[in-house]
Amino acid sequence: MAGNSFGELFRITTFGESHGEANGVIIDGIEPGFPLDLDALQREMDRRKPGQSAVTTPRKERDRIRILSGFFEGRTTGAPLTLMLFNENQQSRDYDSLRDVYRPGHGDYPYAAKYGHRDYRGGGRASGRETSARVAAGAVAKQLLQNRGITVTAYSLMIGGLWCSTVDLSVIETNPVRCPDREKAPEMEQIILDAGASGDSVGGIVECICRGVPSGLGDPVFDKLDGLLAHGMLSIGAVKGIEFGAGFGSASLKGSQFNDAMTGPGAFASNHAGGTLSGISTGQDIQFRLPVRPTPSISRTQQTVDIRGGAAEISIEGRHDPCIIPRIIPVVESMAVLVLIDRWYQQFGRDCRQPSKG
Amino acid sequence: MAGNSFGELFRITTFGESHGEANGVIIDGIEPGFPLDLDALQREMDRRKPGQSAVTTPRKERDRIRILSGFFEGRTTGAPLTLMLFNENQQSRDYDSLRDVYRPGHGDYPYAAKYGHRDYRGGGRASGRETSARVAAGAVAKQLLQNRGITVTAYSLMIGGLWCSTVDLSVIETNPVRCPDREKAPEMEQIILDAGASGDSVGGIVECICRGVPSGLGDPVFDKLDGLLAHGMLSIGAVKGIEFGAGFGSASLKGSQFNDAMTGPGAFASNHAGGTLSGISTGQDIQFRLPVRPTPSISRTQQTVDIRGGAAEISIEGRHDPCIIPRIIPVVESMAVLVLIDRWYQQFGRDCRQPSKG
Amino acid sequence: MAGNSFGELFRITTFGESHGEANGVIIDGIEPGFPLDLDALQREMDRRKPGQSAVTTPRKERDRIRILSGFFEGRTTGAPLTLMLFNENQQSRDYDSLRDVYRPGHGDYPYAAKYGHRDYRGGGRASGRETSARVAAGAVAKQLLQNRGITVTAYSLMIGGLWCSTVDLSVIETNPVRCPDREKAPEMEQIILDAGASGDSVGGIVECICRGVPSGLGDPVFDKLDGLLAHGMLSIGAVKGIEFGAGFGSASLKGSQFNDAMTGPGAFASNHAGGTLSGISTGQDIQFRLPVRPTPSISRTQQTVDIRGGAAEISIEGRHDPCIIPRIIPVVESMAVLVLIDRWYQQFGRDCRQPSKG
Amino acid sequence: MAGNSFGELFRITTFGESHGEANGVIIDGIEPGFPLDLDALQREMDRRKPGQSAVTTPRKERDRIRILSGFFEGRTTGAPLTLMLFNENQQSRDYDSLRDVYRPGHGDYPYAAKYGHRDYRGGGRASGRETSARVAAGAVAKQLLQNRGITVTAYSLMIGGLWCSTVDLSVIETNPVRCPDREKAPEMEQIILDAGASGDSVGGIVECICRGVPSGLGDPVFDKLDGLLAHGMLSIGAVKGIEFGAGFGSASLKGSQFNDAMTGPGAFASNHAGGTLSGISTGQDIQFRLPVRPTPSISRTQQTVDIRGGAAEISIEGRHDPCIIPRIIPVVESMAVLVLIDRWYQQFGRDCRQPSKG
Repeated sequence: MAGNSFGELFRITTFGESHGEANGVIIDGIEPGFPLDLDALQREMDRRKPGQSAVTTPRKERDRIRILSGFFEGRTTGAPLTLMLFNENQQSRDYDSLRDVYRPGHGDYPYAAKYGHRDYRGGGRASGRETSARVAAGAVAKQLLQNRGITVTAYSLMIGGLWCSTVDLSVIETNPVRCPDREKAPEMEQIILDAGASGDSVGGIVECICRGVPSGLGDPVFDKLDGLLAHGMLSIGAVKGIEFGAGFGSASLKGSQFNDAMTGPGAFASNHAGGTLSGISTGQDIQFRLPVRPTPSISRTQQTVDIRGGAAEISIEGRHDPCIIPRIIPVVESMAVLVLIDRWYQQFGRDCRQPSKG
Repeated sequence: MAGNSFGELFRITTFGESHGEANGVIIDGIEPGFPLDLDALQREMDRRKPGQSAVTTPRKERDRIRILSGFFEGRTTGAPLTLMLFNENQQSRDYDSLRDVYRPGHGDYPYAAKYGHRDYRGGGRASGRETSARVAAGAVAKQLLQNRGITVTAYSLMIGGLWCSTVDLSVIETNPVRCPDREKAPEMEQIILDAGASGDSVGGIVECICRGVPSGLGDPVFDKLDGLLAHGMLSIGAVKGIEFGAGFGSASLKGSQFNDAMTGPGAFASNHAGGTLSGISTGQDIQFRLPVRPTPSISRTQQTVDIRGGAAEISIEGRHDPCIIPRIIPVVESMAVLVLIDRWYQQFGRDCRQPSKG
Repeated sequence: MAGNSFGELFRITTFGESHGEANGVIIDGIEPGFPLDLDALQREMDRRKPGQSAVTTPRKERDRIRILSGFFEGRTTGAPLTLMLFNENQQSRDYDSLRDVYRPGHGDYPYAAKYGHRDYRGGGRASGRETSARVAAGAVAKQLLQNRGITVTAYSLMIGGLWCSTVDLSVIETNPVRCPDREKAPEMEQIILDAGASGDSVGGIVECICRGVPSGLGDPVFDKLDGLLAHGMLSIGAVKGIEFGAGFGSASLKGSQFNDAMTGPGAFASNHAGGTLSGISTGQDIQFRLPVRPTPSISRTQQTVDIRGGAAEISIEGRHDPCIIPRIIPVVESMAVLVLIDRWYQQFGRDCRQPSKG
Repeated sequence: MAGNSFGELFRITTFGESHGEANGVIIDGIEPGFPLDLDALQREMDRRKPGQSAVTTPRKERDRIRILSGFFEGRTTGAPLTLMLFNENQQSRDYDSLRDVYRPGHGDYPYAAKYGHRDYRGGGRASGRETSARVAAGAVAKQLLQNRGITVTAYSLMIGGLWCSTVDLSVIETNPVRCPDREKAPEMEQIILDAGASGDSVGGIVECICRGVPSGLGDPVFDKLDGLLAHGMLSIGAVKGIEFGAGFGSASLKGSQFNDAMTGPGAFASNHAGGTLSGISTGQDIQFRLPVRPTPSISRTQQTVDIRGGAAEISIEGRHDPCIIPRIIPVVESMAVLVLIDRWYQQFGRDCRQPSKG
């Protein structure tokens, strides 16, 4: 059951529930002496926080990061870096309506089966609120990778059936749906608003590109870079799959079409593989796509059962995201950078300081 | 770099390369006293072995399992169970042609970048031969799960663009492509033979169904059952993605369409989720699909570079699989059962023997 | 460097430094539904806290436990249990005197060599303050074990050269040095007071007894119960060794003297082994002893060097413990119970709930 | 139960039982490109093997190392290095006498309690034969450390009550008891022979010195170098304790006596700490001592019980070591180098190759 840690050398452990006092993360294994940019950390939190635009839940949380340890005089010490997010907006809502009934599409039923004793308030540990701690850790890892020339960018490739026609990374943060296509962005926005207005929700596809990754990251045979990234991505509740490079499309290609011809040292004519071969990075962009299901909390009436097994109906009122994609994008980036920094440490060490004999 | 172990409580560690003396696996943490069926173990090996039919490489390997430890008087002892597959068909081939050139679609280039010193004979550790050890371990886990009422079955859902029309699990092992559609099976077979005859290869899609999994397996938040399965599947070299339940299709659904309504205690009206909610098994079938790329070794001429960076051409002669799917299916099943038995142990313990006070 | 976690199935991760805002621990993997006794938790913290008696530092810290997650309606939920200890007594002291000089017997020098960037205020992460988080986690584990009939008790067997003549466990908590010998307790107390008065410090030997441990805990070959306990104990800064049962004395015994004859099922004529055979608990008491060095912070003048390598003198003023043993005892018990609950989970599962089919 | 792995970045997994077909070890995470000296590997095996002198069991095993993977053209590849020791001397002895009775001092009873199903032939996994795999792995690690200027040496400090008067490391391998005192060596030898002749056994104390260890190895707080070494040493069946530096003696010292004054950069006036401060290496010699119990297999008659609980007598005939210390010394060195190479990798990376951008 101890599944709340991720990574080996750059290892995070998160805690916190939907209605707990705080969420947080301990990062164990971070390199010492790194000058963290605290403003940049907070900006990443702001990309995930609710209430940031018309397409997200209007619920307000500031998600202010507080560093409790591992940071001294502007630099990491190498001791566990602890980042906390105290909840400021805990409402004493009435959750009695959720106490006895399983919400469709939520973890209510399997949590009850697994644990017996369950925090029924807003999903407890199964709540998306948990991902705030991942973004805090990811924001740290992002800075470490940036310092090594690596950038990771995710965006909305499709929402509610509408696909991007072009991908311009500079466009992503100019619109609330984080769409890289300037023309399609307002249409995607409208799709989300319409879904919300009708008491429903929509899903979509997120694409993520990792640039500047050197060749040699990832470890045979079980810790292939794709395997670790897949693990990280599928640990995000709303993600229902992943594909790298040509992905599901590669199933219909011939070998002569799929293979990426090499054209020079570390240079390839194409990138159907998506940036890895045999699970090791090739130096090409690492590229993958994720289907994100529509958010399960909708106000339309749904059939379900109560904890005694009786038939029940449920209509989930409240301030929910009619599409989680705009807010899931920093979570996707976070899981990617967490994998990459860990494998960098595995391959090159934390900082390659030369040992001094005693 | 130590990525050759998988699992926590039922932990396997594999070793062996394409042209080494042996492949093998140590299973650490297995329950004591279990009466292994050695014939059934061997039958699983036979499902993966080369030369089993016209659609696979004609290379002959018997893959005889030898148990070196952990087994006494017909039962597991609880000590490490060691399964070995000694190579009987090591040819002293001339690999000089592969020494200096990177094969497209193979791990040759990133392995060189990662390790410097590389076993260039047939891919070394990156060879598919490594998966024989996974199947050996998986064959053990399968028996443990069967004893708990769980079965895992994978099959060819699509090959070279041709999809099954029906899925009848009883049909799978009656044809060499492991297709659950009696009508499509010979067509798929022909597609593979044609690809091989033309010096090319084809890919396809594997589907896997896990039945009898109780609710409650998988662990929040990073060890979600989907995350662990995704990790396992994407650690298979030829697999380029994964999707659970409605998968990529869920991206185009509304919440009111996607959510699986509950109709009774542990009963659902549909299974778009694919058997988990919030990463915990619900008791429904766990169902996922994997795109498998065409095998990279083809005899057609391909552009590449040599280790000095010069342009080169390569045509990979030899006995290769024009489609790896028939032989990858037991590997897929193996990674699935390895995840499931580990999470069973996590949730319910190894055997729930009651402690006796000293 | 990620060394701040301990345990596998009952896994703790701690954080916090001497002068940080808080210390804390995340417990991952705890059984759900356990009714924690919060008052009993706090009582354990009080046994470790400074200022509890005349023989400890007069520094006052209340060490109030605050539970931030994993606890709902009086019971554990199975989600990470997070215990925090906010520092209430952070003085804005002048640490400039410690900035440039290495204190003898402290981790100042190797921390500087290891990390470069160092929190020089009171030892940072190397401070004994870190053990407060261990005691918080240990207090939880103690309750879980008590519920299984296991008790763990440590006490002062020797202080400053003075040994107990008798061991009466009921006496331990009746005196400030936690001595099980009613007669020797006041003498030990005086030894500590005298050492402090002379600007010096004393060490001693702690003994620990674990009762009610069933046979079968511990795992061959590297996770022998003695190995894990030794790991835990030697991770306490002041502990310089460990011996089980006859310990160093066994080196002078003959086999015919050392072997514990069996007199019945699970019954032995003696306990020279100290409660384990081949690293597995036998059901006898587990018994070990730990040498605890004198506390390094003394006000006497000591020779040392500064960070530029120049010769320096140092006299450490302030409120230090002239003997750490009275306060280290709950830390010893905590590390012992953390090992035992983890191995209980390994052997018997978390709670042996029977699986229900979906 | 999965306790057969040791280390994180240089991780070994061992297998094999007393009467199995083979013993072996997989080393996962080893640096690629290292030119192993195979003769030196074998020499280490010869130091542990039975029958090497008059003071060990006359049982003959050659313990020939065979490398099954991870080694190509004289160098490590970075893939799992697999070392196998096939048993050549498996006698079809009659073990029926051991089937039903628990040998005092052996793991027979707790193994039966733990596993139910037990390999009763010669102790199974609890047999000292298992340590051959440790020595094989240690012999590899030794070469890696030697290449970094680190040497680890263990020797007999005391045997059967007789202590060394002097310690001259060059003397150790000149006598069969591995005693560093030329004068005492023959006396120790006689003590062992006398014990054997009288059907009994003797124990002793092993000391180990690690030289050339740079400052900075070991990780706060749980992975202190002393904690990891203690774990490794107490995972050796016959070892009943450990002490570092002044060890148990430090319990009687004052702080002003115990603290090692610094006399220059990385220079100390004494080494009571034994080479670490706060669990991090200081650059001084790491020095520890281990009490080794007398071997439990003796031919004298002992009281015990059978598996049905009835009183029984046992006299263990056969070829046993009257003192295990001469053969345990390479095991002690092995566990020490396994800890050190792992922590070197943690601190400095595997080889600090600079990354090349793709």
